Amino acid sequence: MKIAFIGAGNVAWHLAQALAAAGHKLAAVYSRSAAPREELAKLLPAAKPVASLAELSVIAPDVILIAVPDDAITAVAQLLQVPSGTIVAHTSGSQPMSVLESIAGACTGVFYPLQTFSKAKTVDFKKVPVLVEAQDSRALQKLEQLAQSISPQVQHVSSETRRQLHLAAVFACNFTNHLLGISRELLQNAHLPPDLLQPLIHETVDKAALFPPFDVQTGPAVRHDENVISGHLHLLAQYPRYQELYRQLTDSIQATKGKV
Amino acid sequence: MKIAFIGAGNVAWHLAQALAAAGHKLAAVYSRSAAPREELAKLLPAAKPVASLAELSVIAPDVILIAVPDDAITAVAQLLQVPSGTIVAHTSGSQPMSVLESIAGACTGVFYPLQTFSKAKTVDFKKVPVLVEAQDSRALQKLEQLAQSISPQVQHVSSETRRQLHLAAVFACNFTNHLLGISRELLQNAHLPPDLLQPLIHETVDKAALFPPFDVQTGPAVRHDENVISGHLHLLAQYPRYQELYRQLTDSIQATKGKV
Repeated sequence: MKIAFIGAGNVAWHLAQALAAAGHKLAAVYSRSAAPREELAKLLPAAKPVASLAELSVIAPDVILIAVPDDAITAVAQLLQVPSGTIVAHTSGSQPMSVLESIAGACTGVFYPLQTFSKAKTVDFKKVPVLVEAQDSRALQKLEQLAQSISPQVQHVSSETRRQLHLAAVFACNFTNHLLGISRELLQNAHLPPDLLQPLIHETVDKAALFPPFDVQTGPAVRHDENVISGHLHLLAQYPRYQELYRQLTDSIQATKGKV
Repeated sequence: MKIAFIGAGNVAWHLAQALAAAGHKLAAVYSRSAAPREELAKLLPAAKPVASLAELSVIAPDVILIAVPDDAITAVAQLLQVPSGTIVAHTSGSQPMSVLESIAGACTGVFYPLQTFSKAKTVDFKKVPVLVEAQDSRALQKLEQLAQSISPQVQHVSSETRRQLHLAAVFACNFTNHLLGISRELLQNAHLPPDLLQPLIHETVDKAALFPPFDVQTGPAVRHDENVISGHLHLLAQYPRYQELYRQLTDSIQATKGKV
């Protein structure tokens, strides 16, 4: 398929390269700033970096993927004009398909790769579930084909369900990453090597994949070990924000006991 | 070495079996309730389940490991009497070595396996750092030997440093596990399969091992995407505790931006 990207951030960066590697013709990359679109287009054999959305429609791709920050999708959709029948899908977990409905003549859809993307880290798309949705069956079939060309895990998920999933993903990924960052900061300040906790972190997520996490909760909170808890709160006196998080997370663990 | 355990919970369960497998003589297991000590002793070829601490001293082990909940260690130490020169170490991350100082004639120490233990899940001790500390060099050497017999990662860490490490571990393990539990609960309530987020969770921790997590933070909080954030808070209206956690974690991510 002939594909164009709107956006050249983390998601576009990885997804465009994966689609090109799967044999699709990545024809164009649009982004507002010049540097990102040029940098990404350079990595795609057939891609032209384009500076206007109007130029994008002239290229007439089969599929346009909108991979811009969630709060910019509506603005892009209002500016975009496409040849009738063009499939236009966004790649967001949080936004409904309906944010694209202002694009006259387009067949709208969603192409959501359920993964966290940073430019510096390669991603194995064979392990990335791709959740698709579309306005009609032709567009759905095309987006499914596109997804299957890069991942064995393709599912049809509605906007409402995807929204719930995205919320769960924020807890499992974004918030977890923040806790790992706090942990690393505490290690650094104690002059301990940052990799000392790696076996513990890996065991934690391995265990959470095998058992419901609430069932295998360990640590001072679930044991109601008030001495250890107050010792930790004392150690956190110089980090008032982390101290408050510690308190809230401890309360939440204690309130969750027995819940599965 | 001839070893006895005080405690038959998660830590004792795994550690005693690993030490027995490494060729040590696990001579006795004490616990207040009969069932756990009998269950564990059954798995150790040479072990006797004992019902009193006095009986334990008669057995005269080289090393007694105290693996009871952190807030019970002091009480055990006050009751324990041992032949002079017996090495007595606890296995706690949070407690200083000094909680054992009431044991007359003992050489005290700490033998802390830095891992999360649940009975249901086997643990590969080759991947468990063991942090040791002791009152004198003979005891330190013995505890180091013991640790090296089950793990290639043995370090000498002071009580004060271990306390900081334990706090970091609570964020990286206990709190992370709780977030994974919340995520699973949200998935279940949306009738989504619990394993759908596994690739995302694994990528999150893999990435956090390669880069400082604050540097690779993704999601609506770090993007200051207020629409998505308020949509998520709205979805969490029925979970006030999770809503508050969402708010706190989002604030903390936003306050941490740029910090490494």
